[in-house]
Amino acid sequence: MPASPSGALLDELRAQSPLVHSITNSVVPNFTANVLLAIGAAPAMVDIVGEAGLFARVAGGLLVNVGTPTPEQREAAEEAVESALDAGTPWVLDPVAVGALPIRTELAKRLAEKQPYAIRGNASEVLALAGEGAGGKGVDSADTTEAAGPVAVELARRLGTVVAVSGPEDFITDGQRILRVANGDAMLTRVTGGGCALGSLVAGFAAVRGEVPPIEAVAAAHIVYGIAAERAATGAAGPGTFAARLIDALYEVSSADVAASERLREEAVAA
Amino acid sequence: MPASPSGALLDELRAQSPLVHSITNSVVPNFTANVLLAIGAAPAMVDIVGEAGLFARVAGGLLVNVGTPTPEQREAAEEAVESALDAGTPWVLDPVAVGALPIRTELAKRLAEKQPYAIRGNASEVLALAGEGAGGKGVDSADTTEAAGPVAVELARRLGTVVAVSGPEDFITDGQRILRVANGDAMLTRVTGGGCALGSLVAGFAAVRGEVPPIEAVAAAHIVYGIAAERAATGAAGPGTFAARLIDALYEVSSADVAASERLREEAVAA
Amino acid sequence: MPASPSGALLDELRAQSPLVHSITNSVVPNFTANVLLAIGAAPAMVDIVGEAGLFARVAGGLLVNVGTPTPEQREAAEEAVESALDAGTPWVLDPVAVGALPIRTELAKRLAEKQPYAIRGNASEVLALAGEGAGGKGVDSADTTEAAGPVAVELARRLGTVVAVSGPEDFITDGQRILRVANGDAMLTRVTGGGCALGSLVAGFAAVRGEVPPIEAVAAAHIVYGIAAERAATGAAGPGTFAARLIDALYEVSSADVAASERLREEAVAA
Repeated sequence: MPASPSGALLDELRAQSPLVHSITNSVVPNFTANVLLAIGAAPAMVDIVGEAGLFARVAGGLLVNVGTPTPEQREAAEEAVESALDAGTPWVLDPVAVGALPIRTELAKRLAEKQPYAIRGNASEVLALAGEGAGGKGVDSADTTEAAGPVAVELARRLGTVVAVSGPEDFITDGQRILRVANGDAMLTRVTGGGCALGSLVAGFAAVRGEVPPIEAVAAAHIVYGIAAERAATGAAGPGTFAARLIDALYEVSSADVAASERLREEAVAA
Repeated sequence: MPASPSGALLDELRAQSPLVHSITNSVVPNFTANVLLAIGAAPAMVDIVGEAGLFARVAGGLLVNVGTPTPEQREAAEEAVESALDAGTPWVLDPVAVGALPIRTELAKRLAEKQPYAIRGNASEVLALAGEGAGGKGVDSADTTEAAGPVAVELARRLGTVVAVSGPEDFITDGQRILRVANGDAMLTRVTGGGCALGSLVAGFAAVRGEVPPIEAVAAAHIVYGIAAERAATGAAGPGTFAARLIDALYEVSSADVAASERLREEAVAA
Repeated sequence: MPASPSGALLDELRAQSPLVHSITNSVVPNFTANVLLAIGAAPAMVDIVGEAGLFARVAGGLLVNVGTPTPEQREAAEEAVESALDAGTPWVLDPVAVGALPIRTELAKRLAEKQPYAIRGNASEVLALAGEGAGGKGVDSADTTEAAGPVAVELARRLGTVVAVSGPEDFITDGQRILRVANGDAMLTRVTGGGCALGSLVAGFAAVRGEVPPIEAVAAAHIVYGIAAERAATGAAGPGTFAARLIDALYEVSSADVAASERLREEAVAA
């Protein structure tokens, strides 16, 4: 496989500084916004009914993360997604902890049908969204990426979207192709919002996708984030200093670094 | 007093990685989740009506912190506590800023009657919960641990719970015994959520309590947190780097460190 | 211009530790509270209907930031402002992203008429609040401080308040005078809440204003915050470590540092 477009997309993101509209859970908005600012995007959290729809229309990309879905956020998310579809704004779904929790599960399943640009979650979340799996333990995955792979391919085909399953090696598929990203560091699982912030980065890369196929734009976000995590982990004493260093690394990482460090491989899809 | 079970409970917490369900205020969910992840627990904030009750049933421990009690959170908290009682999930009450503020005070007083495993607050909050005291200045304490001690003992007896009063030296009682924990660092009072995150740690230790008496499990959370704070303060330039280092220290602290550094004493209860 | 009262106000703030009541957006409460704690104030976020009004009465200063204005927060903000006016508590308005977003714009315009002690925003926000300007891109400014200056002067005159326009050089006016503060660092624009936290600091300085003219108390907050940012930027590897170092710097900065480093100038107001 030739060099991926990841570095070029990173440069494009910094040049354009796209407005990334985030409707996300109450645990991670600060970290998410700092990740977006560090990479060079312009974050805005607009989750108010009567504003979210207007904003999704002008944003470069939209993230809907259902981690703490208050009634106001649920209504705002629906409003935002309708506007995004109407305006052609790519939008990303993060189905946090779907499965046993009924409010978010119903919401995420309904939204998943509305042509998301991508869906990003862990194995348990992707399985639950597809109506399968053992179910996660809260926000953690009780299932493996391997178990979720075939289901992710089928889900991507059915919904006509990209499905990204985060794990030790990320599994990304559009139903026709499979990309695996090995960049990253286990310390990401010790920082709250480690996955949620990646979802916002996917929306940022979607905003500057140009002619790049969606699966490659989604992989680019994973690669850049993973490389930043690797750099942050070197010399971090624990998850506290790692989190601060991750923001620093996202700010500093260059397209040359990305080209040098990306660990991406393509895999054949089973017939 | 022989060595406390603090180190053993820390090892147990890391082995089990209990699911800690947190319904907490809007200032601290990120810090709280990072504290829980660092120590080895699995945090989840589920504060949505229709989900909170289901989740409290499967969680290892539940924290209810009333710091910014929206109507949605108030209803979710009641739902979660009822489920916790029904399922035997230990739950912890943090009565943030009760006293002059009527919505949270009414809520905290009603919840306090529902068999919490422990109540953790500062002196003013404990006094106010018991219907006494000068009242705090917002989230800070205007009263001393000494003043709150006898009231805490009486409150613990009446409610059949453990009451932990945070201060320069923590005062912990189940109405029959008093334990004092001297571990900690004043820098904790300069980091927002320094006390709130401790409340979540109490819920985490409660989740793995086994046969350990509740007062000792509550003390263990205070000891581990206090020792981590001491380690974090060494070399911190101020509260910003201290907060990151505290997360690192919680990640690194071992049961041997706990045994070596714990400053715990038992005190006779006045007749 | 003689030495400003900035250093003296900083000392006064640390001596009094005023209670700063913050009703702010869901992205920044943690960072805001940590900024206030670091400088020596006592933060409290009370944004619940039925509590906000009572609290604004006893607080030293109040911040209303309309960044994520839920229905509950909108009602709480109105309640708090009415109480603040009645009790003489100085209150500060931060009109985050007003302009294209109708809910917050209507709220901010109505509140702006209620005698705020100060209004702090970026150029686009100030222009939008005055009914002019190109409109911002979310929370970023699409207009320059220069463009906003004359509008800010007119707005300050009409409302009888201080208007502070944040930018590479801050522009602060009470309609009669103009002060410009050159302290600060561009890294502040890469940390979410960099401006929002400054708004809370303005409320903190307002709380200890004494006989100092409002425009000078507002400038003092900008000077102290800007000097801390300069100190934090030295040696920071990126926005992650910068944010932690900013908290450290606010904790450490002395009135002597302020006197030595303040970059303040007064400018004539055009007739």
